[in-house]
Amino acid sequence: MKIIRRPQELQKLMLELKRRNKTIGFVPTMGALHAGHMSLIQAARKENSILVVSIFVNPSQFSPNEDLNRYPRPLKQDLALCRGCGVDFIFLPSPEDMYPEGFTTYVTVEGLSGLLCGRSRRNHFRGVATIVAKLFNIVCPSSAYFGQKDAQQAAIIKRMIKDLNMPVKLKVLPIIRGSGGLALSSRNIYLNQAEKEDALVLSQALRLAEQAVKKGQRTAGTIVNSVKKFIQKKRTVTLDYAALVDPDDLLPVKTIRRDSLLALAARIHRTRLIDNTVLKLK
Amino acid sequence: MKIIRRPQELQKLMLELKRRNKTIGFVPTMGALHAGHMSLIQAARKENSILVVSIFVNPSQFSPNEDLNRYPRPLKQDLALCRGCGVDFIFLPSPEDMYPEGFTTYVTVEGLSGLLCGRSRRNHFRGVATIVAKLFNIVCPSSAYFGQKDAQQAAIIKRMIKDLNMPVKLKVLPIIRGSGGLALSSRNIYLNQAEKEDALVLSQALRLAEQAVKKGQRTAGTIVNSVKKFIQKKRTVTLDYAALVDPDDLLPVKTIRRDSLLALAARIHRTRLIDNTVLKLK
Repeated sequence: MKIIRRPQELQKLMLELKRRNKTIGFVPTMGALHAGHMSLIQAARKENSILVVSIFVNPSQFSPNEDLNRYPRPLKQDLALCRGCGVDFIFLPSPEDMYPEGFTTYVTVEGLSGLLCGRSRRNHFRGVATIVAKLFNIVCPSSAYFGQKDAQQAAIIKRMIKDLNMPVKLKVLPIIRGSGGLALSSRNIYLNQAEKEDALVLSQALRLAEQAVKKGQRTAGTIVNSVKKFIQKKRTVTLDYAALVDPDDLLPVKTIRRDSLLALAARIHRTRLIDNTVLKLK
Repeated sequence: MKIIRRPQELQKLMLELKRRNKTIGFVPTMGALHAGHMSLIQAARKENSILVVSIFVNPSQFSPNEDLNRYPRPLKQDLALCRGCGVDFIFLPSPEDMYPEGFTTYVTVEGLSGLLCGRSRRNHFRGVATIVAKLFNIVCPSSAYFGQKDAQQAAIIKRMIKDLNMPVKLKVLPIIRGSGGLALSSRNIYLNQAEKEDALVLSQALRLAEQAVKKGQRTAGTIVNSVKKFIQKKRTVTLDYAALVDPDDLLPVKTIRRDSLLALAARIHRTRLIDNTVLKLK
C-alpha cells in the first residue's frame, strides 16, 4: 500500500495506470473509518484492478460553527484497516495542497444543495461537490463508491456527474448499522452510552414508517407526522427535519407512488446525526 | 473528419484513444471560425496525435438581452475550414444534450468572474467555466487551446484547471488582428464598414499605451486615462471599461512592476467588442 500526499503525484500515477488499461476504484473518505466505509472499500476491491482510498477532512464542507477541529482523525488505525482490505493507494493530501493560495473555484449543484441538510448547513454541499470534483480529477476513477447513509450527498454527486459529463460510474452502497440499528457514522464517537441508546429512536422511527408502508399507507404527511411524533417523544433528541422526498430531485412527495426517500436529521446534545430509508413499493 | 453529436459517443471514443496513448488536442469554439480560431487549430494539429474541435453556441454564457439568437452559425463553412486543417473529430452537440432536463450544476470561479466583463455580463463566466468543464470531461484533452483575445476567459480557465486539478494543459495563443489592427472576433460580422473603421480606435489605443510604457511610463492611472481619452474622442464608440490589471487575478495594478494586462471593452452601436494587450517590462 502506497501513501501519496501530493495531488500531482497521484494524478500522474493514475493517468499512467489508465493508459495501461487498469480500472480504478475510488473510495473518498474523511477517515475515522468504520464498517460502512469498509463495505465500500471491499466492493471497490472486488470490482477494480486498482483501489484508491482518500482520507481528507475537507475544510470547505464545514461551517465555522461545526466540528472541523474535533472531527476524529485516527490515522494509524485507518491505515491499518486499509492495508487489511488490500488498498493499493492511500491519498492523504494536506489542506494547503488541496486549497492553495488564491483558490476560488466551486462546483455547485443548485436546488438539491439547499434542501434537507442544506437548509441548516450552508455551503456544505458546495464544499462536498467541489472536493469530489477535485478528487475525481486527481484519481481519474472508473468507479467511485459512496454510502447511502449520506443520501443527499449521493443524489448531489449523481447529478453533478451527469450534468458535468464526468467519466465516472457512481456506486451507492447500503447503510451499515450497529446491532441496535444505529447507522454507522464517524460522528457516533461523540456520543456517550446514554446518547447512543437515545439515538436508536432514529432508526426505530424509520422501521415504523417502513411497516406503515407495508400495511398500505401511502400518504407522505401521515408517515412523516408519525415519524416526527415518535422521535419527539424522546426528549433528548432534537429533530432537525424528517421528510419524504423523491430520491433524485429531493423534492417532497405527497403520495408514495414509486421508491421514495424518507430522510431525517437530529441533534443529540452537540452531535448531529442523519439517517434515511428508501420506502419501496413492491 | 468525423462529426459527432452525442456527448457519450465522443467521450467513449476519446477514452479509448487515451488508452491507446494518443495525445488529444482540443479547440473549443462557438463556430463562426476566423483566422484566430485557425491559429489555435493549427497549433493543436502540430502538437497532438488527435485533434478535436467543438462547435457549440453555449446558451448558458449569454444573458437574456444578448445575441444568442443572432450569433452567426455558418456551419458549412466552419466544417470546410476544419476539414482543411486536418481536424479529426468535430463535436457538434445540441443544447438539449448539453443541458438535459433537470440540469443544475455550475462551476464558478469566484472573484475573477465578477470583474471586467463580468460586471456587465452577469453569469457569463459561470456559463463559460461550466461548459468548458463539461467539454473537458467529454473530450478528455491532453491540451486545450484558447485565444488571448478573451484574456479574462483564459485567466478564469487557468484558475479553474488549477483549482479543480483538471488533467489538462492550457495553451493560450496570441490575438490575431486584421490588417488595420482590429482583433478578429466572430462578432465583427455585426459591424458595417464605417463601424469597422471606428473600431480601429481600440487597438490604436492599446498601441498608444504600449508606446507610453516603452518610453518609461509606469503609472497605471496615467496609462488608463490616456487610453480612455483616446477612445472617447471617437463619438460612435462607447467605452465599457479600460483597466490595467494583473493577468492572473485580474485585480487593478497601480504601478506596472511586471507584465500587466491592459484590457478594454466597448460598444459600437449594438456590438460589444473586447481587446487587450499585455504590457511587458523587459
